[in-house]
Amino acid sequence: MNTLHVALGDRTYPIIIGSNASHAAEPLQKAIIGKTVLIVTNTIVGPLYAEQLAKTIRGLGKTVHIHTLPTGEEYKNLETLNTIFDTLLANQCDRKTTLIALGGGVVGDMTGFAAASYMRGVPFIQVPTTLLSQVDSSVGGKTGINHPMGKNMIGAFYQPQLVLADLSTLNTLPGNELSAGMAEVIKHGAIYDAAFFSWLEDNMPKLMAKDEAALTHAIVRSCEIKSEVVAQDEKEGGIRAILNFGHTFGHAIEAGMGYGAWLHGEAVGVGMILAADLSHRLGQLSATDVTRIQNLVKAAGLPTEPPKLGIDKMIELMKLDKKSDAGQIKFVLLEGIGKYKIQTAPKIILRETLRVCEVI
Amino acid sequence: MNTLHVALGDRTYPIIIGSNASHAAEPLQKAIIGKTVLIVTNTIVGPLYAEQLAKTIRGLGKTVHIHTLPTGEEYKNLETLNTIFDTLLANQCDRKTTLIALGGGVVGDMTGFAAASYMRGVPFIQVPTTLLSQVDSSVGGKTGINHPMGKNMIGAFYQPQLVLADLSTLNTLPGNELSAGMAEVIKHGAIYDAAFFSWLEDNMPKLMAKDEAALTHAIVRSCEIKSEVVAQDEKEGGIRAILNFGHTFGHAIEAGMGYGAWLHGEAVGVGMILAADLSHRLGQLSATDVTRIQNLVKAAGLPTEPPKLGIDKMIELMKLDKKSDAGQIKFVLLEGIGKYKIQTAPKIILRETLRVCEVI
Repeated sequence: MNTLHVALGDRTYPIIIGSNASHAAEPLQKAIIGKTVLIVTNTIVGPLYAEQLAKTIRGLGKTVHIHTLPTGEEYKNLETLNTIFDTLLANQCDRKTTLIALGGGVVGDMTGFAAASYMRGVPFIQVPTTLLSQVDSSVGGKTGINHPMGKNMIGAFYQPQLVLADLSTLNTLPGNELSAGMAEVIKHGAIYDAAFFSWLEDNMPKLMAKDEAALTHAIVRSCEIKSEVVAQDEKEGGIRAILNFGHTFGHAIEAGMGYGAWLHGEAVGVGMILAADLSHRLGQLSATDVTRIQNLVKAAGLPTEPPKLGIDKMIELMKLDKKSDAGQIKFVLLEGIGKYKIQTAPKIILRETLRVCEVI
Repeated sequence: MNTLHVALGDRTYPIIIGSNASHAAEPLQKAIIGKTVLIVTNTIVGPLYAEQLAKTIRGLGKTVHIHTLPTGEEYKNLETLNTIFDTLLANQCDRKTTLIALGGGVVGDMTGFAAASYMRGVPFIQVPTTLLSQVDSSVGGKTGINHPMGKNMIGAFYQPQLVLADLSTLNTLPGNELSAGMAEVIKHGAIYDAAFFSWLEDNMPKLMAKDEAALTHAIVRSCEIKSEVVAQDEKEGGIRAILNFGHTFGHAIEAGMGYGAWLHGEAVGVGMILAADLSHRLGQLSATDVTRIQNLVKAAGLPTEPPKLGIDKMIELMKLDKKSDAGQIKFVLLEGIGKYKIQTAPKIILRETLRVCEVI
């Protein structure tokens, strides 16, 4: 088992990474302060892992309830969130009740926001079961839900007490979900660590074959990078924005296609290619590096072409991004692999990059 | 104008109290960082004060939108909250947009929670227009909405940038709302300041006649007391709970009658009488002091008898209170005027106190 700490003062918490990490009773015992636990999961993950987790926690003398959400990003909304509150209140759960998110990013985001909001905040543990949630949403405390007009528009910064990233849950993960998670792993290399990016180029076949040692390294290094960034800027005033590399384009694709049509990681994969292209057109990234990013995204089994949403539609959707400032789109771009730059872009050059989105 | 500061480290904020405080451009200019402001108000307060406030802020070169909520506690729910997000997104409001709550406690609670949650947190200003919101909800950062199964069950601790308590808005306040606010003023004296309680006994007729000097003193002293308590315990781990004197009973009355049937302050007024009665039955408060509390509640024009909800129903509702701990009801009681004690109570004695709630 590998243990990292996300350093956030009195909100510092451990991430435990390894096979069967979710069976580890000791960290759970330390993290659960009250007598009652609500495991929130979904219809796919719940049947596979909820009972085992509940059994481990019942073994600690706790009362465990299980709440199962419908599966999919399209349910990450206010109505579904409210069903968690219904269950909490129906079971008379008090302020010391711990919420455990067992599932991927959608379950984690919704459970985290439910924990942040229920009685103005109850304790919260994450057991991420997808690569994406293990390397991304389990670090950093971002929680939230979607609004029909924008992704993650409603939420809170709220830190968990503990994250258990159980590698063995990846065995049941579909291939396209593994790819989607890999998009964020690639992102961490691209913006922050050229050596890690090279390592990913060499090891992508192993990673896609779910080689345990390779996956462990990729997850640990990703969590380290994200932790380092988040520890410097918990509430996204500055450097944390670099984690949005590929996301300005990606969010527009997700919103434009309707939530659930593209996986988040798929949209981010294409978004990184577009961001690399824009960086190149601005004269700050070599054609070779653009190709390296394209190739690595492709090697991870991700799409490399954006949907034909139209240039104007893409720009309109990007203006709604949370990082926009009075209608100005702020991009996270590259000045070489491993080196980010936050900047705006002239509209005429942006439109060049977006030409691949043109409706045919 | 009187200015107080709620001392919360880097979240410290000023409360400005006085006639026409909401016309003061300087503090607004200091507090509004972005270019866009959304004033959230309701159908009663909006027509009276929204345009004047919007004009003042437009004079600072800001774009101002106004969102009008339906009036009443029964709309303090997830659906109404979502209409604020709709307006924010329809106007492409970004992370620097300031939300201003113009209205009473319901508007303040909902706007505050919307500000806490929109894009995971945007700046927020309160312009409370009722006595209740001036002395209570504008200090302390509690925001939230109701759930059919419990009041304020969903929310956040979120501090405003500024509070403008404009005394002139009290001129249009209905008498029963003035009384409701007075319940919290009485509470502050009862739990924390015996001299202030005596002053209230002497000055209640003046206060009910909206004498400006008397009201100013009552509001300033109330805000001081609440600020002092909150500064010691922002997130209600300890002493802050004393502000719930009368509220455990009061919340049960509100929930039991259906939100909106009783004003919050009316329920708290009766709740304080029940809490005083329970304190007396536990041998820690004299019969004279119970009578003083009853008389002061009555002098404020508040009801002094609880509705006949039934003893069991009241106990069941109280167990749902956020301060309950594993089904144990924690009461804030008195050991004399101005001296609180947090404690549980034997069921048999509690039932004696609740006998006045018995269904006839």
